This record gives sequence, C-alpha cells and structure tokens, in this order.
Amino acid sequence: MDVETLCRRLEATMHKEMPISHFMGVGVLAFDRSSLVIAADLEPNINIHGTAFAGSLYSICTLAGWGLVTLAVDSHQLAASVVVASAEVRYMKPVQSPKIVAQASFQGALSDALAKYENTGKARIAVQATIEAGDAQAVAFTGQYVLLAE
Amino acid sequence: MDVETLCRRLEATMHKEMPISHFMGVGVLAFDRSSLVIAADLEPNINIHGTAFAGSLYSICTLAGWGLVTLAVDSHQLAASVVVASAEVRYMKPVQSPKIVAQASFQGALSDALAKYENTGKARIAVQATIEAGDAQAVAFTGQYVLLAE
Repeated sequence: MDVETLCRRLEATMHKEMPISHFMGVGVLAFDRSSLVIAADLEPNINIHGTAFAGSLYSICTLAGWGLVTLAVDSHQLAASVVVASAEVRYMKPVQSPKIVAQASFQGALSDALAKYENTGKARIAVQATIEAGDAQAVAFTGQYVLLAE
Repeated sequence: MDVETLCRRLEATMHKEMPISHFMGVGVLAFDRSSLVIAADLEPNINIHGTAFAGSLYSICTLAGWGLVTLAVDSHQLAASVVVASAEVRYMKPVQSPKIVAQASFQGALSDALAKYENTGKARIAVQATIEAGDAQAVAFTGQYVLLAE
C-alpha cells in the first residue's frame, strides 16, 4: 500500500473510532516508516489565553505516537492492540498557528519491540513527539506504548 | 460566593473559552478549597478500544488541575494567569464508565505558592489528579502549574 493511502486510511480510522479527533480537525500529513506527522486545527483546540489548550497539544502528540506504532504493527502484519501506558510532556512555548503540527518518531528500536512481541505477545516501545511554534520547539512529549496480543 | 456558584461559573468559563471542553461534556462537580472534581462523558471521548481515549483522560486531569489552581487564585483576588508547564501521566486500567470523573488536589503548599507569587509575580505549584475505574485507580496525573502576572 502506498504512503498516501496508508495516511488516508489512518485518518479515516481516527475520525470514525475516536470522535474527538474529528472535532479537533486531525489530519495525517506524512509517514516515512520512522516518523509520522499529523496536524490539527487551532480553532476547536483554543484555550482561554487564545493559544492551543495543553490537553489538546498532548492529545495530538499521543495520537501521532499511536498512529506511528499502529502503522508499524500493521506493516508487519501483526494483530497487536496498541495502547499508551505512560507519558511525560513539557510545554516550552504557547502554540497559536492556525495548524498545530506534531511529528512522532521512535525513541527505542522498533525491530527489538516487534521481535519481543512475536516471542511473548507483549512488548513496549518509546515514542517521542514534538510540536514547534515558529522555529522553536514548543512541546516535547515522550510516551511509552504497549503492544498487546488481541 | 458559594461553592455551587463557583462551580457553575468555572464550568461556563471552560465551555465558553475552551470549545473542546464543551464537546467532551465537561462538568464541574465539587470544590472544597483543597480539591476539585470534574467529569466528562465517555461517548465523545471514546477510542478504538471502546474505552476512554488516553488524550481525553489527560485533558480531563489537566482541566481539573487548571480549575483547582484558578479557583484558588480567584478566591485570593489575584490576577494571575494559570498555565501548565509540564506533566506526567500513567494509565493503569482502561476507563469505560459513562461518566469519567477526575479529582485534582494540591501536591505542594498553596500558601507558599501564593506568597511567592505576591512577592515575585511568578510561582509554581504541583497538582495531582486521579481517575478511578470501579474501585481501582485508573489514571495518575501530576502537573506543574505556573502562576504568572497578567
């Protein structure tokens, strides 16, 4: 399956299965096996300060990580559920561009996690995600994702 | 102002200034100076597993913490902006009750933070929030909130 079709399918799954992602205006922009880029609209995610709500920034990072791990699992024809077990987030700058863009990439070795999943039915992998504002990093996210046999 | 009026005002502010809180069905349930309880509906926050989306669980905790610090600031007639600077979250169990309930309480000493804010125009306070599923803790959140002179 080509990358554009993978991105459109992931976006459709998010909108169908997670209604809040549709409300947030989430779109899948790019995927290259080691990273996934998604975006959301500022307007539905705005807060009392006229900038992006901290909870929405976290949700966009979490979704980017979930999408990245899910596409990796799918592309290896594994039937694992992907869930986030824990995460840390730091907010360095407010975000107020009309589109909020998050890029997620693997922090751990994907091949090790997939091998462990195939051997034991369970594995864990760390994903980092970032959101920029202007040329500076605005949000730094690290999430621990778990692969579980369905 | 009585507690019921404070809760209704906080809920109205959230819905007006943060449209996603309205979509999520956020309601303010209780406040007793040291803790704040808010709830959200499962349905708009559901994920692909039929349980509450991790990003929504985080957002509900963050909002509970923000509301708690904001009510403390307001009740001391301070004109501080309240923002979350960093947070950690752990997911122990899935949440699938029709109402998702988060309770936030201060981890640090509120009086110290308010005194520091009055002296320097800036202060930081830690808030913890929890969400239960059945009788067990499902989500553990800790956020560092910053008070800034407006």
